[in-house]
Amino acid sequence: MKWWGWGDPAHEPRLPAHALAFLEAELGARPDRRDPVALEAVRLPESSLPASARDRLVAAGGEVRDDREARVVHAAGKSYPDLVRQRSGELEHAPDAVVHPGDRSAVAGLLEACAREGVAVVPFGGGTSVVGGVAPLRGSFPAVVSLDLSKLDELIGVDAVSRTAVIEAGVALPDAERLLAPHGFTLGHFPQSFEYATVGGCVATRSAGQASTGYGRIEELVRGLHVATPAGPIEPRTLPATAAGPDLRQLLVGSEGVLGVITSAALQVAPRPVVQRFEGWWAPSFETGAAALRELRQEEVAPAVARLSDETETRLSLALAGEGLGARLMQRYVAARGREGGCLMVLGWEGEPEQVAVRRRAGRAILGRAGALALGSAPGRAWARQRFETPYVRDDMLAHGVLVETLETAAQWSSLLPLHGAVRAALDRALRARGTPPLVACHVSHLYETGASLYFTFMARQEEGAQLDQWRAAKSAACEAILAAGGTLTHHHAIGADHAPWLPQEVGELGVEVLGAAKAILDPTGILNPGKLLRGATGR
Amino acid sequence: MKWWGWGDPAHEPRLPAHALAFLEAELGARPDRRDPVALEAVRLPESSLPASARDRLVAAGGEVRDDREARVVHAAGKSYPDLVRQRSGELEHAPDAVVHPGDRSAVAGLLEACAREGVAVVPFGGGTSVVGGVAPLRGSFPAVVSLDLSKLDELIGVDAVSRTAVIEAGVALPDAERLLAPHGFTLGHFPQSFEYATVGGCVATRSAGQASTGYGRIEELVRGLHVATPAGPIEPRTLPATAAGPDLRQLLVGSEGVLGVITSAALQVAPRPVVQRFEGWWAPSFETGAAALRELRQEEVAPAVARLSDETETRLSLALAGEGLGARLMQRYVAARGREGGCLMVLGWEGEPEQVAVRRRAGRAILGRAGALALGSAPGRAWARQRFETPYVRDDMLAHGVLVETLETAAQWSSLLPLHGAVRAALDRALRARGTPPLVACHVSHLYETGASLYFTFMARQEEGAQLDQWRAAKSAACEAILAAGGTLTHHHAIGADHAPWLPQEVGELGVEVLGAAKAILDPTGILNPGKLLRGATGR
Repeated sequence: MKWWGWGDPAHEPRLPAHALAFLEAELGARPDRRDPVALEAVRLPESSLPASARDRLVAAGGEVRDDREARVVHAAGKSYPDLVRQRSGELEHAPDAVVHPGDRSAVAGLLEACAREGVAVVPFGGGTSVVGGVAPLRGSFPAVVSLDLSKLDELIGVDAVSRTAVIEAGVALPDAERLLAPHGFTLGHFPQSFEYATVGGCVATRSAGQASTGYGRIEELVRGLHVATPAGPIEPRTLPATAAGPDLRQLLVGSEGVLGVITSAALQVAPRPVVQRFEGWWAPSFETGAAALRELRQEEVAPAVARLSDETETRLSLALAGEGLGARLMQRYVAARGREGGCLMVLGWEGEPEQVAVRRRAGRAILGRAGALALGSAPGRAWARQRFETPYVRDDMLAHGVLVETLETAAQWSSLLPLHGAVRAALDRALRARGTPPLVACHVSHLYETGASLYFTFMARQEEGAQLDQWRAAKSAACEAILAAGGTLTHHHAIGADHAPWLPQEVGELGVEVLGAAKAILDPTGILNPGKLLRGATGR
Repeated sequence: MKWWGWGDPAHEPRLPAHALAFLEAELGARPDRRDPVALEAVRLPESSLPASARDRLVAAGGEVRDDREARVVHAAGKSYPDLVRQRSGELEHAPDAVVHPGDRSAVAGLLEACAREGVAVVPFGGGTSVVGGVAPLRGSFPAVVSLDLSKLDELIGVDAVSRTAVIEAGVALPDAERLLAPHGFTLGHFPQSFEYATVGGCVATRSAGQASTGYGRIEELVRGLHVATPAGPIEPRTLPATAAGPDLRQLLVGSEGVLGVITSAALQVAPRPVVQRFEGWWAPSFETGAAALRELRQEEVAPAVARLSDETETRLSLALAGEGLGARLMQRYVAARGREGGCLMVLGWEGEPEQVAVRRRAGRAILGRAGALALGSAPGRAWARQRFETPYVRDDMLAHGVLVETLETAAQWSSLLPLHGAVRAALDRALRARGTPPLVACHVSHLYETGASLYFTFMARQEEGAQLDQWRAAKSAACEAILAAGGTLTHHHAIGADHAPWLPQEVGELGVEVLGAAKAILDPTGILNPGKLLRGATGR
C-alpha cells in the first residue's frame, strides 16, 4: 500500500483530460498536480518506546519495527484528512513502533506486556479506516504501538455442512476469497476497501460490502469470535442462534479495538455464485428509483448488489466517465425514449441460475412498473470492472487540489428522502459559506426490509492552507444533519476518532457509559485504542 | 390465566383414555388424577412491603395490589417446577405486591421509587417463562414487587413504508396481531406461549416462534427500543442497520429484566400472508429429514414453519393423537409404500401465492430426493389446529403423576445429530438412575443457514415427594450434555433462574463480568430481577 495514498504503489491512474476539465469548470480544481512529499521528508518524531518495553514485546513473541517506513505506513488510515496530512508530510501522530504478532497465541502476551509497560495499542488490519480508526493516538500513555495483525493470515477451518469458516483476523479479503474458493465458498464481502481490508478489521467496524444486500453485513455473518483482551480471552461460541442472554458477539462486533483484539472469527459463508450478472438501469428520478429498490427488497427479489445514484451522482459519473462508460451512447438511448435527467442504477444478480432467473424476472417487472429502463449489461460490467478503482482516482483529485470525501448513513425507508435532502443541503451550506461550493453526490447502496443506506461523495476546491478546517466544517454539518433527520452516524465506516464526538447523540450518554463499563472490565488500564469510539472513556 | 397451570381457566382438556393408557404402560402414570390445591390453601407469607414504599409506588403512578390472587398469579412462571409447586400450594416465593404502571411514562418513576426504597423489581409480561424468569426473588432486599406491564397495551404507531411498528411492551401477542391486522401486517411471532406472551417479554428473552424460520427471531425484528432503567432511559434509535459501534440493541434484547424494563419496541413487521399451507411429510429417518431441512434452508426455499420429529416424538405423537390425527390412516399409507418407522415433519408455507408456489415446488423436489413422502395437508392442519394446545395437555399429565418438561438448544448443522444423541442419552441416564426411565422426544424446530434448533420433551413417572430433585437431576444432565456437545444452553427459552448456573460456561466468566458491569451502570442498586441471568452479579 502507498504510504501517502490508496493501494498498489505500481498503480497510479491519472484523471483523464475531460474529467479534469470538468472538475476545473465545476469546482475550480487546479490543472497542475502537486505530488506528495518524499518519504524522507515526512516529519516523524523520535520513537518514545522505552527499550524495556521493546524487549518485553520481543520476548512476548512480537516482531518490532520502528523504521521510518513502518511507522509512516501505520501512522494513519485513508480518510481525506489522513491523505492531506500524509501528502504534506505533516503527520499528526505516528506510532512509536509497529508490532507484528507471529500468530494468534502471541496477541494475549503482547497485550499483557503493553498493559504492564503502559503502552497504548492500536490494532491494525489493512489500515483502510476512513474515520481515523487506526490513528496512533496514545491517550495519556507515554508510548503507542500499532499492532499489525497481518501475520494472522490463515483459514483455520471450513465446516462445509454448516457453511461456516473460521478465519484469522489478519486475512485480507482477497485472500479470504482465495482460501475459500477451493471449498466452493465465498464470504461475499466486497467493500470498496476490498483489496486491503482484513476480516478482523471488517468485524471490528461492522463493515458492509457492495454485495451485502445479498450476502449480509459482516455482523450478520459472525457466528463466533475469538477476542484477546488485557483481562483474558473472550470467545463467544460458534452458534447459529441463541437466547442465552444479551449477545456478546454483537458487543464485540463493532468494538473497534477498544474492547479487545479480534484474533479470529467464525463466519457464515455462501456458495460461490454460478451466475453473476451486473446490469445498468435508468430510473426517472431518485424518488421513483428508491421506491423500486424498496419494493425489490420487500418482495424478497432484491439483487445482491443494488445501487441507485441520485441526479447529481449520475451527472458526475457520466462526466467523469466520458466515453469510457459508453456514456454518450447511454444518454442517447435514454433520450431516444423520450426521457431526460433521471438516475443511473447498477444491479448485480448473483447465485444459482434458476434462483437468479426467478428473482430477475420478478425484479424486472417491478422496475418496469416504476418506469425504469433497462440499459443492458454494459454499464453494469463497467461498474464491476471499476468497482475498487475510485480510491485510486481520489488520490489524483487531491493532487489537483480537490477536497473529496465520502460519508454514509442509513435510515428507515420513510426517512430516506428527507435525509438525502438534509445532508445535501448541510454540506452545500457549510462549504458554500467557505467560498468553496461543493458537488454533493449520493447513492443508495444497501437495501433492508425496513430501510436503506445512503452513501455521499462530496467534492469542492480545497481551501488552501485550511484543508482540515474546511473538511471539519463539512463533516460536522453532515453529522448534525444526519442525526437530526433520523439517520445513523455511519452505516459501514464505523465511529473511529472522527465520529466519536457524536456517539453520545447516536447511542445516548447512558449507552456510552455502558460501553465504557464493558471497557473497564476488558481493558482495565485503558491501553486499547484510546481516543477511538469512546472518546473520553479510557476505562480507567 | 390459571394460577396453577396453563391458560384459559375455562379450558381444561383431559387426556383421552388411549393416551392415558399409553402413559400408564410406558411410564407408569397414575390412572387417577390429583387436582391442585385450592387457591385459599396456598401457603403465602405476609407481604413485607413497607407502607412507606407502598405509598411511594402509588405516588409514582402505580396501581398496587397485594391480594392473594394477584400475589399467587405473579409468584411463578410455567416451568415444570413452577407447576409442581403451584399445584401443591407450596410456593417457594411470592411477590410482596404487584405493581401495575398505568402507562409507559410511569415506569421510570416506579423504578426510582423501588431503588430508593430498596425493593427488588421483577418485570412481568405474560408470566409464561419456563426457566424461572419471573420468580419473585428478592436477593438481599427486604421486599420484592412484580412489575406487571399489562397496561402498556398500545400499538404506538405503524410505519407502513418501512414495515416497522412501535408496540408497547405489555401487548400480548394475539393483541399485537389484532392491532396490526387492519394495517395489513403481522409480527409473525407464534411461540407456543402465543396466547399470553407479550411483546416486551419476547424481546427480553430473545424469543423465537414456530414460524421464525420464515419471519425471523424477535432479535432479528428489533429495530429500536425504549428501555427504562434506574439510571435513566436507554433508547437505541430505530434504524435498519448501523456501524456506530457495538450494538446496544443486542445487549438489551435478551437482558431479561436485569438491565432495564423494556417499555416499547420498534419491530419489523411483515405483510399478512395470503397463503398459509401446512402439510405433513414423512421422512425415512431423523438424519435424512434433518439433511433435507438443511438443504431447504440453504437453498433459500425453506417454509416459514419447519418441524421434524425424531423417531420417538413421532411414535409419541401418533400414540397420543390416537385416531385424532388420522394417525392410523397415515401409518397405513406410509406402510403401503413399503416404509416403516420414520419421522413426521410439518411444513408451513406462507406468503404471496406465487412466492409460495416457487418455494414449495423447489422444496418438494428436495424432499423427494431425500426419500420423504408427502402426507398431504391433513396432518399439517391438525398440527396447526393444536399448535397452542400442548401446555394445556401438560397440566393433565401432571395431574396423572407424569413429569413432563421441555428444553431446547441450537447448534451448527455439523453438531446437530451428535447433540441429539448426547442429550437423549443424558436424560435417559439421569432419570433411569432414579428408577424413572423416561421417554425423550425431540424435534428440529427452527432452521438457520448454519444450523438448527432442537426441542426436547421428556416424560417420566414423577418421583413422589422428590419431584423437584428428580427434575433438577434431569435438567442438570441435559445442560451439561448440551454444552459439551457444542449446543447453546437455550435457543428461545432464555436463561432465567434455571439456566443461570451454566451461563459462565456459555459466555465465559469474563462475558458474565461484562454483563455485570453493564448492570452496575444501569441498575446501580441491583434492584432489577435479582437472581436471574446473572446469578451472583447484583451490580453492587
